Amino acid sequence: MRRTFLQLLALAMLTGPVMGPAMGPAMAAEPVKVVYHLTEGLDQASRAMSNIRNHLRAEPETKIVVVANGDGIKFLLSGAAERNGRPFDAAIAALAAQGVDFRLCSNTLTAHDVPVSRVLPGVKLVTSGVAEVARLQAREGYAYLRP
Amino acid sequence: MRRTFLQLLALAMLTGPVMGPAMGPAMAAEPVKVVYHLTEGLDQASRAMSNIRNHLRAEPETKIVVVANGDGIKFLLSGAAERNGRPFDAAIAALAAQGVDFRLCSNTLTAHDVPVSRVLPGVKLVTSGVAEVARLQAREGYAYLRP
Amino acid sequence: MRRTFLQLLALAMLTGPVMGPAMGPAMAAEPVKVVYHLTEGLDQASRAMSNIRNHLRAEPETKIVVVANGDGIKFLLSGAAERNGRPFDAAIAALAAQGVDFRLCSNTLTAHDVPVSRVLPGVKLVTSGVAEVARLQAREGYAYLRP
Repeated sequence: MRRTFLQLLALAMLTGPVMGPAMGPAMAAEPVKVVYHLTEGLDQASRAMSNIRNHLRAEPETKIVVVANGDGIKFLLSGAAERNGRPFDAAIAALAAQGVDFRLCSNTLTAHDVPVSRVLPGVKLVTSGVAEVARLQAREGYAYLRP
Repeated sequence: MRRTFLQLLALAMLTGPVMGPAMGPAMAAEPVKVVYHLTEGLDQASRAMSNIRNHLRAEPETKIVVVANGDGIKFLLSGAAERNGRPFDAAIAALAAQGVDFRLCSNTLTAHDVPVSRVLPGVKLVTSGVAEVARLQAREGYAYLRP
Repeated sequence: MRRTFLQLLALAMLTGPVMGPAMGPAMAAEPVKVVYHLTEGLDQASRAMSNIRNHLRAEPETKIVVVANGDGIKFLLSGAAERNGRPFDAAIAALAAQGVDFRLCSNTLTAHDVPVSRVLPGVKLVTSGVAEVARLQAREGYAYLRP
């Protein structure tokens, strides 16, 4: 069966150019993708927001996904503010408008007894934050970064 | 030019079995592999144990290796307990039974003057924890995660 | 030239089974490359220096790049010393002589109002530390490690 698949693939290749991860060079043309993993709390989140702004200023094509679990979810809840009193929601909305995805661990919501209604609009829930972080690297070619 | 190469490649494929990541789909069929890197101490280890349980509940096929160095080794020594007093050894044994590997840095044992006899049964020693973390990513396709 | 190589490669493929990561063997022959990401301050930097020495003792062929941003840059400034009073500069020079690269985030210099003149000799400036960390992984096959 494996062989049949390969034969079909080879046949497909004969019909024209093929691109994507099988071909290294095509990979280099893709934008860099990176997951920012947040687990600590509001100070780490402040650093992360600043890091991401700098990242996109230096490399605007970068695809950034933020995955938060544990205390990392706090900045994604309504009412969360930075040390200087500035609320997180506007900064998050601004980055989301630039294409940054924010994903939050549902397991953490349950474990910390946080109602879903407190999650900021636009934030996506994932079943397990850590599983998402591993999946993005293993399946979607994301780099890892812990701010 | 690209096409010519692909045609030759396709031809080559028709002649016999080809294996490995050259074929994206084959890669996707493998389980996700991830190294949890622990360096901080007992609180980080508690979080990690909980993370790993959630991870395996969400994605039971995941291959997880825990590599501990520096203060990260403390939970792998006999007598170590979580903040709530619960000893780590039972939780570690339970995860090991689910296929999680625990690897501990021998350099740290020496540097911290910890006798090997204190290392929990089932924990594997590696020469250098950091070298192991890099090797797993570069040579065995592991994703990285720092709890 | 590229074409000739590809043709030879295709020819080689025609002769028998091929295995491994598109060219596993070539990949496996390369040294492991790893980026150490430093963001915390002098204590993390002390740990990192010790980690890197152990890493190179265990695997001397490893290519190590240290990328520092945020408080992670402090040990790369003149006058910085470890807790025990030992200055960082000699240790950094010794590792640099073994092939370790030290790269510092220019954005951080600006944000922290640090003049470039304080940066230790031999340290390379990069526009954005976080972008560099992602680029090394996505474009140059580096593993990630946070000490």
